[in-house]
Amino acid sequence: MISEALMNQIQQRLPASPVWSAQQSLSSTIGIPIGVSNRHVHLSQTDIEALFGKGYQLKPLKELRQPGQFAAHECVNVVGPKGLISKVRVLGPARPETQLEISKADCYALGIKAPVRESGDLYQSADALLVGTFGHVSLQSKVICAQRHIHMSPFDAELLGVVHGQKVRVNAGEQCGLVFEQVVVRVDERYALEFHIDTDEANAAGIRSGESVYLTD
Amino acid sequence: MISEALMNQIQQRLPASPVWSAQQSLSSTIGIPIGVSNRHVHLSQTDIEALFGKGYQLKPLKELRQPGQFAAHECVNVVGPKGLISKVRVLGPARPETQLEISKADCYALGIKAPVRESGDLYQSADALLVGTFGHVSLQSKVICAQRHIHMSPFDAELLGVVHGQKVRVNAGEQCGLVFEQVVVRVDERYALEFHIDTDEANAAGIRSGESVYLTD
Repeated sequence: MISEALMNQIQQRLPASPVWSAQQSLSSTIGIPIGVSNRHVHLSQTDIEALFGKGYQLKPLKELRQPGQFAAHECVNVVGPKGLISKVRVLGPARPETQLEISKADCYALGIKAPVRESGDLYQSADALLVGTFGHVSLQSKVICAQRHIHMSPFDAELLGVVHGQKVRVNAGEQCGLVFEQVVVRVDERYALEFHIDTDEANAAGIRSGESVYLTD
Repeated sequence: MISEALMNQIQQRLPASPVWSAQQSLSSTIGIPIGVSNRHVHLSQTDIEALFGKGYQLKPLKELRQPGQFAAHECVNVVGPKGLISKVRVLGPARPETQLEISKADCYALGIKAPVRESGDLYQSADALLVGTFGHVSLQSKVICAQRHIHMSPFDAELLGVVHGQKVRVNAGEQCGLVFEQVVVRVDERYALEFHIDTDEANAAGIRSGESVYLTD
């Protein structure tokens, strides 16, 4: 049973033109904003101080779509056995554990093999060296390629008819000609609706941040 | 009506274990080898001489899977308004028209916008500067991102139940979680069976040259 409040929300989110028909599932008509994640690093306060100096606090540069998250002014250089990537953005606020998220293309450039993982799943992940303005930090098993996923609130999950941990299919659009499968749904009160992919995936699909994708059967 | 010779070929190409059932379409059981195309350039003889010297002939380094095609010893540097990519491989033999094929990631690095196109479709494509050991060539409307496609012989086309120009769906595999849609079939007597994608697409799907993909409904 769909409540009146939910139905009102549904009406508001439906496309302006009546493309939705009874044959089409509701969830496939709700646009999910795309967030392309360039390579970035989340840092523990200990590592922030090792990289930028004792007592250092990250300086917010730009708010992200996920509430409370921000791109910081600070960047680090990342070094691997085969190469260096400069100016990798730090995201804040500080987290309990440092985590570097890069693309497969970055793995080749650095000469490391980072596994495709959900955020936080760092067991036997890859290594790299971070270099800041004050010092450096050797990351041991803290480097992953982030698995594509959709952030959403419990309300959005109800609207889309999915649950936390479910794997769904995402159509990047007719023109792109790409369907992402096994996209993990992550539901939390704090989350804004957003489909997170990396730069390799965005390039392959020919899509950009701010555009929308749709769930598909 | 399938001839006995064709049925023999089909039998040989089927997986060793009897995973094929009457419910499954034959075409989805035939592995199509993946060929990941790194950035590369095809050159006209005029441009070869402008880049490497009068009367210069490309020196084959390695045969490609497509009969008669080879990676040459020669490389060029590619320059755009925002950057340079060094050591871009030249493929031979010489062609009537020069064509530079790069990825979307390369477009960002160079600062150009190359359209996604089929090989040879250069109308209003992008520009770049090629620099060789002897001289340089300014490419005007000769730079594209190659549209993903499958090369195949007429025999393979019959086996797979597709025709030249048809757009098909390719499943990159359960683990990869990616379906490529609108993949163009290109049939020619000279072609070896091969699914051509660029490095962005290979990274997004987590697949490599030499592995196989399958057609899907």
